[in-house]
Amino acid sequence: MSKLVIVGTVAFDAIETPFGKTDKILGGAATFIGLAASQFNVDGAIVSIVGGDFPKEDLKMLEEKGMDISGLEVVEDGKTFFWSGKYHNDMNTRDTLITDLNVLADFNPIVPENYRDAEVVMLGNLHPLVQLSVIEQMDSPKLIVLDTMNFWMDSALEELMSVIAKVDVITINDEEARQLSGEYSLVKAAHKIMEMGPEYVVIKKGEHGALLFSDDDVFFAPALPLEEVFDPTGAGDTFAGGFTGYLAKTGDYSYNNMKNAIINGSALASFCVEKFGPERLLKLSNSEVHQRLQQFKSLTQFDIKLT
Amino acid sequence: MSKLVIVGTVAFDAIETPFGKTDKILGGAATFIGLAASQFNVDGAIVSIVGGDFPKEDLKMLEEKGMDISGLEVVEDGKTFFWSGKYHNDMNTRDTLITDLNVLADFNPIVPENYRDAEVVMLGNLHPLVQLSVIEQMDSPKLIVLDTMNFWMDSALEELMSVIAKVDVITINDEEARQLSGEYSLVKAAHKIMEMGPEYVVIKKGEHGALLFSDDDVFFAPALPLEEVFDPTGAGDTFAGGFTGYLAKTGDYSYNNMKNAIINGSALASFCVEKFGPERLLKLSNSEVHQRLQQFKSLTQFDIKLT
Repeated sequence: MSKLVIVGTVAFDAIETPFGKTDKILGGAATFIGLAASQFNVDGAIVSIVGGDFPKEDLKMLEEKGMDISGLEVVEDGKTFFWSGKYHNDMNTRDTLITDLNVLADFNPIVPENYRDAEVVMLGNLHPLVQLSVIEQMDSPKLIVLDTMNFWMDSALEELMSVIAKVDVITINDEEARQLSGEYSLVKAAHKIMEMGPEYVVIKKGEHGALLFSDDDVFFAPALPLEEVFDPTGAGDTFAGGFTGYLAKTGDYSYNNMKNAIINGSALASFCVEKFGPERLLKLSNSEVHQRLQQFKSLTQFDIKLT
Repeated sequence: MSKLVIVGTVAFDAIETPFGKTDKILGGAATFIGLAASQFNVDGAIVSIVGGDFPKEDLKMLEEKGMDISGLEVVEDGKTFFWSGKYHNDMNTRDTLITDLNVLADFNPIVPENYRDAEVVMLGNLHPLVQLSVIEQMDSPKLIVLDTMNFWMDSALEELMSVIAKVDVITINDEEARQLSGEYSLVKAAHKIMEMGPEYVVIKKGEHGALLFSDDDVFFAPALPLEEVFDPTGAGDTFAGGFTGYLAKTGDYSYNNMKNAIINGSALASFCVEKFGPERLLKLSNSEVHQRLQQFKSLTQFDIKLT
């Protein structure tokens, strides 16, 4: 069992989907990553920042899930980062209605002393300079995983490129991979991104699954076909949390084990979308996860004999 | 080894893609289906119609691939069906430029006497009444597979529904499944379509793979991630030909074997798109197919131990 450092937002979200809408509920990349990783009972720490308005019971909940929150700064006279969005009918696209950075505007991440020797670092979607600062505080991690998005390509490309150069794995969605590489073909895009630094490139295609590239190898994990996607918020972060949580638990960072990690990430993401925000992840039993992994086996495994 | 009856167009296509354009080349659903099925050395018959302008060497080629063409009518003073289309830059959408039905306008399909006892029937995309006529000429096939498209939903829905009620498997693309069922969720769409007759529903998602539904089971085969899709024309038909060819070869029409059939169909379709029209299928060796099936294993198979 390796230690896992998670940096990302801990936030309030207000979400509207064709199925309903929420008031401010718990959200944020680090929240979803942490909750997903907690399924593997990893020794994880969340590095983030919230305001005095952030509920103490949510802090306690994260601790009870096994997350060290000594690096989760609480600014008593500040307000927690708030995002509000509305999904279109196809659930694949959304409009951002509100982004209030609040305390996040002056976030200076501090990795707790006893987590600087962690083997695995998960850099959730945040300003590249924050991600860079976390990398610099680590002793010698064996695996650094970066999640990012087009917003940083548009606003802080140079800083983002310097982070990309330092990580082992990047997770990125298909349109963003195209933007970053200038290639339409995802195969070509992945290879161009590998040249920027990462040995492994994970391209997330939402309901169409995820691809893992390394050298000339490629592995594909489908998303579980669901009757309804209720709320996609946090699915990508949950995927990243399942991916890194599984890798930290097993301590095996080989390509073959990353395949298993991707399947675990996809399985957890398939729960995330079933309810608003992290609601479904908060009440997730081991046996439910086990059963879903079995579904992924039935969904993908076949028996063609090849000699 | 079971006999396979294939009905569908044998045609000329003129294709334009971002990579180039062709004059009139060999095309048609039954052509692609037959070429794909021929990889399994099945005892297949093509039921179709062409004009006197159709090259004798192409007829000979189909025979050399093991296809019985006694049900492939040649109307010496007629012209062969001609389709012309232009693909957009994303290769997922296309405009039809020309559709000249020619001899297809008066096509009365005749299944050769010695193929009326065939176990497997592949109804390629054509007017539902032609498909219905073929079904009626068969003795007691064990597996009838239907491919269709939105054009028939718009123009001959009643006739199409009566064909759908008589088949075991329907292959249909995602948007068409949504149109036919009125459901956006592909899981819900598949279950509604099963209620129309077929025990198995295959939903083709192009570059995003294919889903096989039966009862509450679902299996997914990805498309092989390719550096370039050169020309998607015929990929769906090639998939159908690989699917039915494999099933006819093995004589096993179980759900589990259909998984293998879908992978074989996907593997052959991945070759089809590498060159214009059926060019790549015409020069395809057993060892190339074997190697590609191995790639599909690497792409999808993982090793999570579940008890």
